[in-house]
Amino acid sequence: MYYINENIKNLYRVKFHDQRADVLRLDMNENPEGLPKEIFDAVLKKLTPEYIATYPEKDHLMKLLAEHNSTAYENISVTAGSDEAMRLIFQCFGEPGKKLLTVTPTFEMYDVYANMFGMRHETVEYKEDFSIDIKEILQAIDKETGLVILLNPNSPIGVAYDETDVRNVIRRAEEVGALVVIDEAYHYFYAPTFMPLIKECDNLLVLRTFSKLFSMAGLRIGYVSGEAKLIEYIEKAESTFNVNNIALLFAQEVIQNPKLVDQLAKTEREGRQWLVEKLKDAGYRTFAMEGNYVLFYPDKDSKLIVEALKKEGVWVRDYGRGILKGWIRVSTGSRRCMEQFWKTFCQVKDVIG
Amino acid sequence: MYYINENIKNLYRVKFHDQRADVLRLDMNENPEGLPKEIFDAVLKKLTPEYIATYPEKDHLMKLLAEHNSTAYENISVTAGSDEAMRLIFQCFGEPGKKLLTVTPTFEMYDVYANMFGMRHETVEYKEDFSIDIKEILQAIDKETGLVILLNPNSPIGVAYDETDVRNVIRRAEEVGALVVIDEAYHYFYAPTFMPLIKECDNLLVLRTFSKLFSMAGLRIGYVSGEAKLIEYIEKAESTFNVNNIALLFAQEVIQNPKLVDQLAKTEREGRQWLVEKLKDAGYRTFAMEGNYVLFYPDKDSKLIVEALKKEGVWVRDYGRGILKGWIRVSTGSRRCMEQFWKTFCQVKDVIG
Repeated sequence: MYYINENIKNLYRVKFHDQRADVLRLDMNENPEGLPKEIFDAVLKKLTPEYIATYPEKDHLMKLLAEHNSTAYENISVTAGSDEAMRLIFQCFGEPGKKLLTVTPTFEMYDVYANMFGMRHETVEYKEDFSIDIKEILQAIDKETGLVILLNPNSPIGVAYDETDVRNVIRRAEEVGALVVIDEAYHYFYAPTFMPLIKECDNLLVLRTFSKLFSMAGLRIGYVSGEAKLIEYIEKAESTFNVNNIALLFAQEVIQNPKLVDQLAKTEREGRQWLVEKLKDAGYRTFAMEGNYVLFYPDKDSKLIVEALKKEGVWVRDYGRGILKGWIRVSTGSRRCMEQFWKTFCQVKDVIG
Repeated sequence: MYYINENIKNLYRVKFHDQRADVLRLDMNENPEGLPKEIFDAVLKKLTPEYIATYPEKDHLMKLLAEHNSTAYENISVTAGSDEAMRLIFQCFGEPGKKLLTVTPTFEMYDVYANMFGMRHETVEYKEDFSIDIKEILQAIDKETGLVILLNPNSPIGVAYDETDVRNVIRRAEEVGALVVIDEAYHYFYAPTFMPLIKECDNLLVLRTFSKLFSMAGLRIGYVSGEAKLIEYIEKAESTFNVNNIALLFAQEVIQNPKLVDQLAKTEREGRQWLVEKLKDAGYRTFAMEGNYVLFYPDKDSKLIVEALKKEGVWVRDYGRGILKGWIRVSTGSRRCMEQFWKTFCQVKDVIG
């Protein structure tokens, strides 16, 4: 019998078999409508059969991203979504047997990669009022800690961390020889960033993705920034051609278009505000902070509501357990999309027993 | 100080900084011209901003690939190039400390992944006449062997393995608890395949890519087939969204178009045959077997020729050491591309001292 890596053997994975092409996608924090048509068409015009037949070249985008973030080429590595950056961080810096520390609930893949690379996952829980006690995080960082990952703002609970707290986490992590990863997947919906801290802190990595505001979840592109030595290790672990060249072209286009950020953020913010008002007017407990998503507490079983909405072609997300049990998360998009959600929700909620 | 994986720390990597957009690319076995324009346009027409904003769905392509290869959905996993499949195979089945066995020269990434995942790389060398002695491979497989990888046809030396030899390798590997990987990157240029053997052999994985004949190296898509249990482990180790959805769309299009295979193979074969004749007529030692590449032995320093060609915008590959020292590998494409290469080669060779 051949050898099998024990971590892989014992890993529990949920396979993704969804077919969401023709539904209103409000379950995974994508942009349900995508990029403005003119930007999209401008990139498509640049594509040729020769281009896609050629192995991808990342250098140009890396230089643009360095400039965009007022950092250097050596501090950036482009990855297949921020997801690949996470995987590489665990592969390079995730010491088997040591602890990954995160809050809970948070993005599910951190737990998957912790198990995949043989780390133990320790969590700090949100309070009933959806606040997090930074002291609990600081206390949990000890000599057994290898990685601390904070999604900022966190999803599904959209609370952001303040700079003093993050600086304390980084300092405490440094004392025990741990790395800190700040996942800024929802950056641009929420403007503040901790990326400038990579210049001061050599145990900090910051993740970004083009899947959320930049509306290209299908293309798999993101990046990681950090002190040059950290990035060098990550690049050693990368495959030679880890990002496809259509994603590179789209990323180059959007990163050089500062108006686009405002335009996409404004469209989402209008939709979000409209939805939050509707929810509040209808008397629902609502929690809407910094990301492109809103939590609300329906007066009927969240599972039944999610199923009923799904039958009508509107996909949102609920939570089977923990502090969010009973809540529904709706990814927010344009007012048109939010109106469609609201209309469908109002129709289905009355039918549910 | 934070932890760093020793294998990553000690890994030697060559970074890719080439800019090849405007050159004749005959150095990496891509199709220098790409897909026929009508196929390309047909896929582009299907793209929308909404589509690229949506997380990728692989199931449809997996079903098509299963059908295309007369196997089952459970026996296929789609990966970001065959390169990602290799990485996952090492991660799942590459026992640290054990041996990877390959021939030399072969595809360079096998060595990188062996080192990345802590395996020792042992090689069997080609003879001076570019033949390989299968007995040497069989003898090298022992209790210390974890993986055997054969690229078929091998690159840069395009010799293919015969079925009896491959069956013997698989059987011998099974005796010692090793997995065998047959990398069929150049399939379609060379029609025979060992994929049907996955039904009989539960220690065999077969790799395919869309980067070579299917002309989409830039899109990063390939797949691995094997016994269902092996594929299950590989899928456990995959990231949830490992392949971008434009690559999925292109792959779906080309896999359903049997005429395209013939068309692309015919174009390449015409070019290859034309070039081989030119090389032979000019008196060069030439070695051209099954892949989309040709080896020839120039009468001047191969390094100087490669550099001179590069200055004229024609990129080919030479080898600094080993059995191929002094040889040049030219990726083959249409007759038009081969004529351009030949014209430039004839111009530069006389100028070199």
